Amino acid sequence: MSDTLGGGAMRAQGGRSIAMDLKFYYAPMTSASRVHWALEELGIPYEKFKLDLAAGDQKKPEYLALNPNGKVPLLVAEGRPIFEGLAILLYLGERFGADKGLFPPPNPDRAEAFKWMAWGAVTFGEALQRYLRNSLDRFPEDERSPKAAEAAKKDLASHLAILNEALEGKEYLVGNTFSFVDISIAPAIPFLGRFGIDVSPFPNVNAWVARCIARPAFARVMQG
Amino acid sequence: MSDTLGGGAMRAQGGRSIAMDLKFYYAPMTSASRVHWALEELGIPYEKFKLDLAAGDQKKPEYLALNPNGKVPLLVAEGRPIFEGLAILLYLGERFGADKGLFPPPNPDRAEAFKWMAWGAVTFGEALQRYLRNSLDRFPEDERSPKAAEAAKKDLASHLAILNEALEGKEYLVGNTFSFVDISIAPAIPFLGRFGIDVSPFPNVNAWVARCIARPAFARVMQG
Repeated sequence: MSDTLGGGAMRAQGGRSIAMDLKFYYAPMTSASRVHWALEELGIPYEKFKLDLAAGDQKKPEYLALNPNGKVPLLVAEGRPIFEGLAILLYLGERFGADKGLFPPPNPDRAEAFKWMAWGAVTFGEALQRYLRNSLDRFPEDERSPKAAEAAKKDLASHLAILNEALEGKEYLVGNTFSFVDISIAPAIPFLGRFGIDVSPFPNVNAWVARCIARPAFARVMQG
Repeated sequence: MSDTLGGGAMRAQGGRSIAMDLKFYYAPMTSASRVHWALEELGIPYEKFKLDLAAGDQKKPEYLALNPNGKVPLLVAEGRPIFEGLAILLYLGERFGADKGLFPPPNPDRAEAFKWMAWGAVTFGEALQRYLRNSLDRFPEDERSPKAAEAAKKDLASHLAILNEALEGKEYLVGNTFSFVDISIAPAIPFLGRFGIDVSPFPNVNAWVARCIARPAFARVMQG
């Protein structure tokens, strides 16, 4: 990681014009993309540090000192390391997003944001993890159960039905305006399709994902 | 559930002296206990609705209309149903807890709160679910893998080590004062011991749990 963090570290748009530095540690095509997307939507200056997960950057002592979980994403803000993608989105939302219309103002829409963001990371996220751990051959065969994969697949379909219903007649999840709430869930959906989950029965979900990922900030994230 | 919600519903301390009603749907000895604890710490009026999970109250249409996930906890606040325990703690923390010193003020301690609360619900929570689903005989045998249970047990030990390190020299997780952050994780620890996870190598964690559950509000929660 030291190489990446040294000469290879990219300085993002705008340099250091605000007093507070934001340092973002990530790898492309991981759950860090949500945070990356939120930072791009905010349009505030931040520094990006790309980790090479295959090379084990995330397990190096200097990174573990910031994030003992040895995972991405990580944001260092106000001198403090914040781990957990959900936590970073909540922080960025409250600290910068609300002023820019990207995070609902306090209550009751803020409560609605907490509800969907927690649901995406906890309930939906657990079922997704369970499905992947029981079906992908990157996990040891003796730790996988095809029956558990089937059960997780059914749970994911139930969760998608709940999301589809919540999006009925709406463009976005909360306050009918694009926000970090959408960012916290939408990127998981195209990913599901690639792993054998049929998303076609949920038209509201598909239309919503298409709407979200059409944003220029998302295209910038996809460039890594 | 209609019986429970009717005559059996308990009115909590203080009646309806504030304009906003809080309606709390729960079952004892579930993840709803965290929210229950937070409400008791706040000392604000709320109505409790106890669901009989064995009787399927959580799957009745009138409950599913509020929480399509068919689970507890649920809080109806400002006329809106909020599901997900983590979301309810965040809402109660921001709306009432910060004023009472039970939730950190905005940043940087607030960011620290998000970090640990998300970590508890997502990273720690996923490993715990995975351990239980692969070891408890309440789950179908052909969906369980003893090897996956072992791997989850190791992950939980790593997570407990991270928590133990975070608590080094501290009484509580954030700002060194008791808060909803502690509530969001501490109740899981005694539970681990009952399911075969050895917590004894983590003295800071044990001392912290003892400190938290000694609070009078926790004792009230344990009464159901």
